[in-house]
Amino acid sequence: MIEYRSLRVALLGAGSVGSQVARLLLEQGDELASRVGAGLELVGIAVRDVDAQRDVDLPRELFTTDASSLILGADIVIELMGGIEPARGYVLQALNSGADVITGNKALLATHGPELFEAAEQVGAQLYYEAAVGGAIPIIRPLRDSLAGDRVNRILAIVNGTTNFVLDRMDVHGETLADALAIATERGYAEADPTADIGGYDAAQKAAILASLAFHTTVPLESVYREGITGVSKVQVDAARENGSVIKLLAICERLTDPETGEEGVSARVYPALISREHPLAAVHGAHNAVFVQAAAAGDLMFYGAGAGGVETASAVLGDVVSAARRHVVGGPGVAESTHAKLPVLDIGRVVTRYQITLEVADQPGVLATVARILSDGDVSVETVQQSIPTTTGVLTVPSAAVISGNAPVHGHAAPTATLVIGTHEAEEAALAATVEALAASDVVTAISSVLRVEGS
Amino acid sequence: MIEYRSLRVALLGAGSVGSQVARLLLEQGDELASRVGAGLELVGIAVRDVDAQRDVDLPRELFTTDASSLILGADIVIELMGGIEPARGYVLQALNSGADVITGNKALLATHGPELFEAAEQVGAQLYYEAAVGGAIPIIRPLRDSLAGDRVNRILAIVNGTTNFVLDRMDVHGETLADALAIATERGYAEADPTADIGGYDAAQKAAILASLAFHTTVPLESVYREGITGVSKVQVDAARENGSVIKLLAICERLTDPETGEEGVSARVYPALISREHPLAAVHGAHNAVFVQAAAAGDLMFYGAGAGGVETASAVLGDVVSAARRHVVGGPGVAESTHAKLPVLDIGRVVTRYQITLEVADQPGVLATVARILSDGDVSVETVQQSIPTTTGVLTVPSAAVISGNAPVHGHAAPTATLVIGTHEAEEAALAATVEALAASDVVTAISSVLRVEGS
Repeated sequence: MIEYRSLRVALLGAGSVGSQVARLLLEQGDELASRVGAGLELVGIAVRDVDAQRDVDLPRELFTTDASSLILGADIVIELMGGIEPARGYVLQALNSGADVITGNKALLATHGPELFEAAEQVGAQLYYEAAVGGAIPIIRPLRDSLAGDRVNRILAIVNGTTNFVLDRMDVHGETLADALAIATERGYAEADPTADIGGYDAAQKAAILASLAFHTTVPLESVYREGITGVSKVQVDAARENGSVIKLLAICERLTDPETGEEGVSARVYPALISREHPLAAVHGAHNAVFVQAAAAGDLMFYGAGAGGVETASAVLGDVVSAARRHVVGGPGVAESTHAKLPVLDIGRVVTRYQITLEVADQPGVLATVARILSDGDVSVETVQQSIPTTTGVLTVPSAAVISGNAPVHGHAAPTATLVIGTHEAEEAALAATVEALAASDVVTAISSVLRVEGS
Repeated sequence: MIEYRSLRVALLGAGSVGSQVARLLLEQGDELASRVGAGLELVGIAVRDVDAQRDVDLPRELFTTDASSLILGADIVIELMGGIEPARGYVLQALNSGADVITGNKALLATHGPELFEAAEQVGAQLYYEAAVGGAIPIIRPLRDSLAGDRVNRILAIVNGTTNFVLDRMDVHGETLADALAIATERGYAEADPTADIGGYDAAQKAAILASLAFHTTVPLESVYREGITGVSKVQVDAARENGSVIKLLAICERLTDPETGEEGVSARVYPALISREHPLAAVHGAHNAVFVQAAAAGDLMFYGAGAGGVETASAVLGDVVSAARRHVVGGPGVAESTHAKLPVLDIGRVVTRYQITLEVADQPGVLATVARILSDGDVSVETVQQSIPTTTGVLTVPSAAVISGNAPVHGHAAPTATLVIGTHEAEEAALAATVEALAASDVVTAISSVLRVEGS
């Protein structure tokens, strides 16, 4: 039996992830010591209520309500409390004392990341956060290290398991959003108050973290454009399925180059978007997460796995613990956060994307010409137009050329309106949004039933 | 403009990957310097023939035939020559001089890995090899660092693009192996001599590397069981498709526990195997690679991307260059290779797997009972039996219960034999292999047309 020196590990928080981290540290201590070359001694677990019920049976003597005292003298501090305060204060205390910190706190990183990384750099400590995005999926290290010599152009990511579960139920089982959400709640995939998930707030925090890392640029949470899934209807999901697409809530981080000036900027945004069934992300079912990365040299990469779950996320935390511990053993400072590129973060209006617009229009001659003119006036180029007529078996589509030329066959159906599904070419988001407004204001448009962005092509 | 100190980078080899590495180092020097905090000066490129044609136009003055002199004084040496010697000698020279080494040389690592890691550890140098497995896909770092606190139980990996391209053509286009291989050669996916790929040798080297890393155990190349795809027939591929499966050449690394003693061992093996169309690996098409990892805490993870290609693989090399350079800047030794677990590497006979056996049997009463008895005598439990009768549209199957009980309906077809497709439950490979031999020796069995392992369940 080799005797190792011990590193003191303090754990803040014993929720679903924290309690699993504690269990694994206690159960696998010898194995981890062999891998690290030092023992990992869990010196205590700071919680609000020592007597609260835990997922895992842990030695009572480890628990304390005094986080500050626990942090004193710790080599490694694991923060899994969540929320901004008091987590921020404890993380700063730990970093300032020279301890390495591991956190899974995406809210804290997305809002106070620069302050924390700065504090770490000041004293040569490290801040690890593999668990903050994508649960068990290794994505932080691949972006920070493996792709450090490449140029990431785009990330399309499913980073919120709850919304993916809901959208997948709507797609696969034909459920409404309300029904799917009820099942998600029942099965523990959604919180009692699901706002953070279905409002896209959780995904936006992760988008800020991924974009900052991928583009070597601080991307503040406030600059992440965000739409949740509350507006996604069963009709939209069904129509997407009919058209060989699927709606996913995507966190998108993109490098954009101004075509005139050649200047670069970055965009981080979250919204439900249509992607083709052929896209690898379309096959991500249930509460799984996946991060699809497009890099200049590496091409397309995808990282897939469990995006949440106590024990799964604990795997990512323990990977960081081992990294931190190895650094303690071999000495030397780690890698500072790289934000040297300082690219401007662009407004959503500057993003170039594609729209699918579903319109109800008056079913009369000349309407299609009017719609086409509004699009053309808005500098929005049309890729496809389908006129959909509800039938008993689904939707009947008419080839676009006939429709856009105004020569669409007149169908003898009773409805006073026709449905047009317009797929646009790429255009600036601002132009697309203005064009949708112009369409809405037009006399011939009865209603705009759906506007969805199209991604992944 | 910040002035950085420069790190001296020596490149050995200027093939498809090496020439792209040189190009990217020269083109992206400033950007990489910002990320690293030091300049990366490409001081020279050692090649056999200075005047040879290259994929990329590179400054002639960088080329030299004197690798040894180039290595002298280099901070970072990139070895992309391939083969064992002289690559091994140069890598040792570089490590002994204290330089960090980056290699994409899977043959060298699989055969001389322990010697090289030992040399690196002696002087506190680092050996990086992200490019050796899975081309552009970050898989070494996730296994070494992200999953360092977890317990990898199994890896199923498509790590050879050539064979995946060939098998995918056979599946999607119904081509024969010879035709698919000819197209692979024509398109540059296969070498003029494709033995290393289709014989499974390349995949076996990668399996040795992945298994060593995942199980913290030295897994010698000689201990990797290997079958290539040369025996895979169009009939097998078509039959797999009919049954909702697909044949993939898999590199499999597995942790096995003896059910009686509880002792652990590991297995590394390469063979063509059936996997369900529902498995994520079934969707890996063309020359792409993917590594599917099952870990105790993290659950199922998958890493997907381009498994080969000059510029794609150069991305992985440059990621390692940045890691090495950051280590030079911040000081301190890196991470030693972890082989502390020293688990026994088990023979293929000890592996527990499932077989699909296709037999031609005499079409007469009592045959099925005889076959069933041979299986049972061999301790092989049968999960499914299909009796296939060739028809014009494909294969007609008869429910297993009727067949195995000997009450299969007698079909009035002219063939003197019937085809039985037997799916077994899990059993030790040795028992399965012995049972197949017993079947082959039996009077009632006319021919064994196909034996395939079934993986991924």
